[in-house]
Amino acid sequence: MKKIINEPQNVVSEMVDGLVRSYPQYLEKIPDTEAMIRSDSASMKGKVGIVSGGGSGHEPSHAGFIGKGMLTAAVAGQVFTSPTPDQIYAAIKAADQGRGVFLVIKNYSGDVMNFDMAKDLAELDDIKVKSIIVNDDIAVEDSLYTQGRRGVAGTVLMHKIVGAAADQGASLAEIETLAEKALPHISTIAVALSAATVPEVGKPGFTLADDEIEYGVGIHSEPGYRREKIKTSQKLVTELLDKLDQNQPLQADHQYAVLVNGMGATPLMEQYIFSHDLLDQLAAKNIKPVFMKVGNYMTSIEMAGISLTLFDLVDSEWLKYLTYPVETVAW
Amino acid sequence: MKKIINEPQNVVSEMVDGLVRSYPQYLEKIPDTEAMIRSDSASMKGKVGIVSGGGSGHEPSHAGFIGKGMLTAAVAGQVFTSPTPDQIYAAIKAADQGRGVFLVIKNYSGDVMNFDMAKDLAELDDIKVKSIIVNDDIAVEDSLYTQGRRGVAGTVLMHKIVGAAADQGASLAEIETLAEKALPHISTIAVALSAATVPEVGKPGFTLADDEIEYGVGIHSEPGYRREKIKTSQKLVTELLDKLDQNQPLQADHQYAVLVNGMGATPLMEQYIFSHDLLDQLAAKNIKPVFMKVGNYMTSIEMAGISLTLFDLVDSEWLKYLTYPVETVAW
Repeated sequence: MKKIINEPQNVVSEMVDGLVRSYPQYLEKIPDTEAMIRSDSASMKGKVGIVSGGGSGHEPSHAGFIGKGMLTAAVAGQVFTSPTPDQIYAAIKAADQGRGVFLVIKNYSGDVMNFDMAKDLAELDDIKVKSIIVNDDIAVEDSLYTQGRRGVAGTVLMHKIVGAAADQGASLAEIETLAEKALPHISTIAVALSAATVPEVGKPGFTLADDEIEYGVGIHSEPGYRREKIKTSQKLVTELLDKLDQNQPLQADHQYAVLVNGMGATPLMEQYIFSHDLLDQLAAKNIKPVFMKVGNYMTSIEMAGISLTLFDLVDSEWLKYLTYPVETVAW
Repeated sequence: MKKIINEPQNVVSEMVDGLVRSYPQYLEKIPDTEAMIRSDSASMKGKVGIVSGGGSGHEPSHAGFIGKGMLTAAVAGQVFTSPTPDQIYAAIKAADQGRGVFLVIKNYSGDVMNFDMAKDLAELDDIKVKSIIVNDDIAVEDSLYTQGRRGVAGTVLMHKIVGAAADQGASLAEIETLAEKALPHISTIAVALSAATVPEVGKPGFTLADDEIEYGVGIHSEPGYRREKIKTSQKLVTELLDKLDQNQPLQADHQYAVLVNGMGATPLMEQYIFSHDLLDQLAAKNIKPVFMKVGNYMTSIEMAGISLTLFDLVDSEWLKYLTYPVETVAW
C-alpha cells in the first residue's frame, strides 16, 4: 500500500480537518463529530436543511457538495463504513432551521439503518425529517452490503436537485415529492479497471489481471456482473449504454442529463474520450444530452474506472435545478 | 497498459472533442485545430485575450480553465508534446479582440520555441502579443526538456490572475507587468508515487518500487532529486516545505496562496490529509494561507503524487485576482 497518509486509523479525521481548513469559506466541522456544515449559516435561515453522508473514500462526496444551493451538512463515516447515528443526528440538528431536514441516503444496509436511527432521535426533538434512499446502480440486484440496488454516483444529482429546491424555499413535503418523483429516472452503471485499497486493510478489495476489467462493480469493491479483457472506450460505452437501455429504454424525444464519473484514479483524458464515444452513441439514437458533467464526483478511493449516470428529465423543472448556481468545493 | 481509450494515436483529438461536446456552454473547438476557445465570445469584446496550452496529459489543464475570468483560448498538443506553431497562431488570432493577446507558456524548450514562432506569425498580422514563461518548479535546474526551471502547477495560478486582470479590462502592458511581478513569487515542488504512461508509448515513464517515492519529479516523468522509501504525509510535507523555504524563506508576516495539486491518480482523501499536515506545519511558522485550492489542476495523466505551490502575495491586489469569479469547467 503506497498512500500519502499518516496512521491508517486517522485518515478520516485528518481528511475532514484538511478539507474544512482548506475551504473555511464553504464548510466547518460540527464540534466533536466528523460531520460538516455550511459556514455561511446565515443563508440557511428559513430553508429546509439537506443532509447527506456515508462512508468515507468517495471524495469529493459528500462534503464537497456542502454549500449554498446544495447540501447543508454531510457526515463522514470511517472508510467504506456508515457514519454512526449520533453523528448523523448532530448534523440533522445543526441543519434544522425550523422547516425540517431532508436526508439523502445511499442504499447500503448500514447507512439505511443508521440514518433511520438518527431520524428517530431527531423526531424526539420535534425536528421534522423526511428522506430518500438512492438506489441508482442498475448493475445488480442485492449486493454485499445492500438489499435491492446500490446507491452510487446518481446520488450527487439527487443532492443537486433537492439542494436547489431547498435554496428556493421549497417545503419539506415538496422536496420529498421531488426526490421520489426523480429517483426512478436516475440510473447508473460502472466499469472498473482496478480496485480500491482501504487504508486500514492495506490491500485492494479485489484483483483484476493486467488486461482485465469488471462491469458493474460497486463503490466499495462489491462484485459486478462480468469480467473480461479490456475493451476500447467505444465498446465500454456500448456495453454500459445497452445495460441502461435494457433497464429503461432510451427515448429520442426525452431530455437527458448525463454524469460521467471518474472513480478516483481515472485520468480526465480517459473520461473525456469516454464522453466523446458516449455522445456519438447517444447521437446515433437521436439523443443529445441537455446537461452534462464529467469528472470525479463519487469515487472509490483510488479505484480506476468510470460510471455512467443517465437522468431522464421527464419534468422540465429538473433541468433548472441542475443548472441552478451553487457555491461548493466540488460541484 | 490498461486505459479507457480507442487508438492511442487518437487520444488527443477524441479527448478534445469529448471536452467541447460535454461543455458547449464554456468552450468550442477552433476549426481544423486541437485548440479551443470560449464559446461566449461576446463577453471577450474589448478585452486582452489570454492564451495558454502545451502538451496534453495535464487535464484539466489547460482547456478546463477556458472561460470568463480566466483563459480565452488554449491549445492542446499531442501527449507531453508541444502544440505546433500554426495551431497556437490560430488560437492567438481567434482570441484577439484588437487589444492584443497575452501568452502563458510553461518553460519547456518545445513550448517556448513553438509559442515564440506563433507570436512571430501573429505579429506579422499586426496582432500585439506579449508573454510570460512560467518556471515555478524549484526541484531542479535544467531538466530533460527544459533550460532552467520547469513550468508546472503554478501555471494555473498565473492563468487565474492574468485572466482576472484581463476580464477587468487591463491593458496588454498592464497584464505583462502583473505576470512579471508575480512570477518570482510562485514556487512549486512535487513528490511522485508512480509514473504516467503515455498511450502511444504503452509503458510508464519510470519505475518506482512498491514502497518507493521520488521527490521533485516533473509533469512529464522528468527525474527529480531523490528517491527514498515512502514516508508519512507529515514527513512529505516537511521535505517539500523545507525545499520551498530554502528557495525563498517563508515569512510569517506575508500572505500566501496555496495550491495542493493531485497529479492524476491521487485520491482526494490523500490530498486533504496532506493539506491538513501542511496547514499544521505552516501554522507552526505562524503562517495561515489566505487562499487555498486542493484538487487535480495540473496532472500528469495517471501519475500518483502531489505538488505543492506557494504563491507569496506581496501585492494585495493578487488575492483579489485569485478570488475573482470565473466561469470555467475546472477552476
